[in-house]
Amino acid sequence: MPQQVVIIGAVALGPKAACRFKRLSPDSRVVMLDRGSRISYGGCGIPYYVSGEVSEVSALQSTAFHMVRSPEFFRDVKDVEARPETEAVAIDREKKTVTTRHLPTGREETFPYDKLVIATGSTPRRLPIPGLDLPGVYAVNSLEAAEAIKAAVAGGSVGSVAIVGSGFIGLEMAVAFADMWGLDVTVIELFDQILPGVTSPTLAGMARKHMEEKGVAFRLGEQVARIEGDDKAERVVTDKGVIEADLVIVSVGVVPNSELAKAAGLAVSPRGGIVVDETMRTSDPDIFAGGDCVEVKNLVTSQPMFLPLGSMANRQGRVIGDNLAGGQSRFPGVVGSWCVKLFDLGAAGTGLTLAGAKRAGFDAVSTHITAVDRAHFYPEHGLMSLELVAERGTGRVLGLQALGVNGDAVIGKVNTVAAMLPNIPTVADVSNVEVAYSPPFAAAMDILNTVGNVADNILTGQNKGIDVTEFARLWNQDDLGDAYIIDCREETQGGPLVAKHPGRWHNIPQGQLRSRLSEVPKDKRIVLMCNTGARSYEALTTLAHMGFEQVVSVEGGMAAVAAAGIDV
Amino acid sequence: MPQQVVIIGAVALGPKAACRFKRLSPDSRVVMLDRGSRISYGGCGIPYYVSGEVSEVSALQSTAFHMVRSPEFFRDVKDVEARPETEAVAIDREKKTVTTRHLPTGREETFPYDKLVIATGSTPRRLPIPGLDLPGVYAVNSLEAAEAIKAAVAGGSVGSVAIVGSGFIGLEMAVAFADMWGLDVTVIELFDQILPGVTSPTLAGMARKHMEEKGVAFRLGEQVARIEGDDKAERVVTDKGVIEADLVIVSVGVVPNSELAKAAGLAVSPRGGIVVDETMRTSDPDIFAGGDCVEVKNLVTSQPMFLPLGSMANRQGRVIGDNLAGGQSRFPGVVGSWCVKLFDLGAAGTGLTLAGAKRAGFDAVSTHITAVDRAHFYPEHGLMSLELVAERGTGRVLGLQALGVNGDAVIGKVNTVAAMLPNIPTVADVSNVEVAYSPPFAAAMDILNTVGNVADNILTGQNKGIDVTEFARLWNQDDLGDAYIIDCREETQGGPLVAKHPGRWHNIPQGQLRSRLSEVPKDKRIVLMCNTGARSYEALTTLAHMGFEQVVSVEGGMAAVAAAGIDV
Repeated sequence: MPQQVVIIGAVALGPKAACRFKRLSPDSRVVMLDRGSRISYGGCGIPYYVSGEVSEVSALQSTAFHMVRSPEFFRDVKDVEARPETEAVAIDREKKTVTTRHLPTGREETFPYDKLVIATGSTPRRLPIPGLDLPGVYAVNSLEAAEAIKAAVAGGSVGSVAIVGSGFIGLEMAVAFADMWGLDVTVIELFDQILPGVTSPTLAGMARKHMEEKGVAFRLGEQVARIEGDDKAERVVTDKGVIEADLVIVSVGVVPNSELAKAAGLAVSPRGGIVVDETMRTSDPDIFAGGDCVEVKNLVTSQPMFLPLGSMANRQGRVIGDNLAGGQSRFPGVVGSWCVKLFDLGAAGTGLTLAGAKRAGFDAVSTHITAVDRAHFYPEHGLMSLELVAERGTGRVLGLQALGVNGDAVIGKVNTVAAMLPNIPTVADVSNVEVAYSPPFAAAMDILNTVGNVADNILTGQNKGIDVTEFARLWNQDDLGDAYIIDCREETQGGPLVAKHPGRWHNIPQGQLRSRLSEVPKDKRIVLMCNTGARSYEALTTLAHMGFEQVVSVEGGMAAVAAAGIDV
Repeated sequence: MPQQVVIIGAVALGPKAACRFKRLSPDSRVVMLDRGSRISYGGCGIPYYVSGEVSEVSALQSTAFHMVRSPEFFRDVKDVEARPETEAVAIDREKKTVTTRHLPTGREETFPYDKLVIATGSTPRRLPIPGLDLPGVYAVNSLEAAEAIKAAVAGGSVGSVAIVGSGFIGLEMAVAFADMWGLDVTVIELFDQILPGVTSPTLAGMARKHMEEKGVAFRLGEQVARIEGDDKAERVVTDKGVIEADLVIVSVGVVPNSELAKAAGLAVSPRGGIVVDETMRTSDPDIFAGGDCVEVKNLVTSQPMFLPLGSMANRQGRVIGDNLAGGQSRFPGVVGSWCVKLFDLGAAGTGLTLAGAKRAGFDAVSTHITAVDRAHFYPEHGLMSLELVAERGTGRVLGLQALGVNGDAVIGKVNTVAAMLPNIPTVADVSNVEVAYSPPFAAAMDILNTVGNVADNILTGQNKGIDVTEFARLWNQDDLGDAYIIDCREETQGGPLVAKHPGRWHNIPQGQLRSRLSEVPKDKRIVLMCNTGARSYEALTTLAHMGFEQVVSVEGGMAAVAAAGIDV
């Protein structure tokens, strides 16, 4: 039966839901409203437009076959009526109408609906600081902002940029400014690591070091107090200092646009997300919502969470399109997969970090490995670092974070675990997951299987690891205390470090350990080091067998030490 | 309690099981026997040694930290006794002993065991043809063969190579000879496609075309009758012709080495694989087996299968190591993941092909898509082709095959589905699988989600597709019969083909279709074409809504047509 469907929001979820529904129900009528003048654009592409990799902003608004997704496109190609510059001001659930205001003219109009979709998206979080409204201060949330930023940079008046916030967008913008425009870029982050909340301190440190090598400066653990300048932004003042900047990007997350839903009496969570069920219905069964404005269920914690990503909007949009047409599609929840390109590195993750798992009440442990990402004999290989988070006792896998030079390979490993997470996998499942093998693409024991194996060894107590962040804390002390470092590599590798750090560094190649046991002090805490953590683990099992109880292996070994920029 | 463990076979699974067991049970004694003079090597690396990408054969026998895995290495580093050139000739299960013969001296010896591991691997299948033993005819199954092949090629006496068999090793060898040595290479295949059994005719055709562009010749559907030559191989004679060749590689699969197990009265399947349970135990609970010599359970069909891959050996080896030490580890079965690098393409798959699914009794259908593998506005992107195999009615996903220029990305998609397959996923699970998104790595609607969506549309009848193999059959006829081809792209793309093929090719841009319906014949079978299959699907829904019943969309569109080398 033909229906009248109104969709509030025409950027990501709205168009997807509209087009899917129209394909299933061609006789129905769909009106899609949006406050903005441009609709259906890929906001995730803004950093690549600012960098110049995408030359025209219209490319972000185009289909794969180069047609601009304008109201005319939606009319002719999709048979969907799009109304830009039209704000929904009220929903009357009894009368089933939406009242709108045309922003250029102020004209009000009322649209009746059989079914309504709320896809109002999110708004950049505003810091409670002075100076946010100075010219030259931008959030990265619209094509207009993107054009203004690019115009400023291309105009040549910008030499330095300060970026507040080191989440995905902040870092992508940092890359865009530094890599393509050669600007002085400083990223300011309140937490003491970049990508807080989504990756571990160790992986974040590796990514930060790589970005520093590419010229980006970081100010971690600093709180922005204000942005100053005479008639435009000139500097950012933090609790610890001043960063001069011609341009300031503030990217500290987004908040869901749920006021309209709340005013209509729909259930909205305390954190501001519209509440929906697995069919993406709100508390009113004739009203759906999805995308940045809703809360979704985290399938690892079973708790609601907010996950504002374009990919979510697309997947949820299809489910809504189905269900508008009377279908039974479900969106059971999310595991929280993400990825980001940081110069030559790909970083990605899914599920919980160790800190996130602990916050969620899990008795969790994480395992770090750094190893080559394909057969070691294959000439083109790079390092990849993986961190698997698992629950003690059950061995349940809670998350995986990763980093490496082959971004597609990094994301492939994360996606593999992301696909498993809804089924409550254990580390044994990761040990056995049947990833494809060929020397140019993987090792015979895939790095993903390996991190499962190492996690298993950690959980059973067969291996005892410390990560390089913990190693750095130890190493940077003047006095190592009762710690006794043994390098298990051959003398060609371990010897020079013994000479450089007499008394602090010791070298017993793993193959000689059984015959040189007398050199290992019984009253010290032994810290074993090798290239990647494999030989130090082997040495640990030997020492454990010989009755040494205080022995740990440095996870990821010297490869991780180097990647983290720890000076040994 | 310390045990005496004997392991027959020291190449892949044997060493893995030995080392894992020794780490768990350091006081136990492990003896590892092997017929060969060199042990613990990565046979999968042979094509890369022959190509020269791996310069020394010893690299295939080395650890990641450049130590050669010699008997001395196993003794010193692993505390495992390795006995090369020592053939196990009999197992006495009552006395629990293995009798061996030292091949250079003929000396016999008897080893008692508490637990035994059979890791005897496989042997290249021998074709029943004359000429196999001529000099210059090689199987690719040992480092000795690898050295002989490379010596022949490097010696400059080889100008042309014939390769019998187009499985993984045959094709990898073809790449090695053609890419790195510039030799004339002809691959002869009994089936009418390359990679028979593991991928679809369409994807195989795309891979073949790419290899042909790189200079490799193919003779498909030809049966080798004999290899001829005076005192060395000079030519391969098939049922259809003669291929001159200075060197012949025969790579037509392997057969499990299960004679020893059979002679000892262990259960061996009719196809020759040793039968093991989920703990990798044979019919004798004190005897384990794994790697190329066993049958494993296919988790998609629940039937036993033979999957001789180095990655299997590694994963199974760890399970055996655990269980030797009294553990409870399990290897539940396999889904059949594979990948191969073919010049600039990566190809991969998991689960069943359409043909394999039908053979296994499934009412199966496959969905082909060809699309860009990341955000289309991101400048560096390539095409990827995916083929999802699903069961009608239930929507159960049975397999995925893939091909593309970003090999790591291709393998990542396949691994993601491989991880899901043991849990009996549906196409809705693939539509919603939460792969990570960022424009440099993926599209907002990931190509994997998209193939799930398209498969869903095919299964529900919302979309009706033909793949490019079927399109080629149609197009290559002189008379198109009742088929009427409509190109749904804009006139700039469709127009030139209308001019080139008057009467055979028609162009109605999708956005104009509703207003030009009168041009669409009611009495013909409409075949819709666009760039990738998205607009033609959209056009199909429009036509279906307007009452046209005989309409199909070409899956993957012109992108797939071009990749398959179909001349339009």
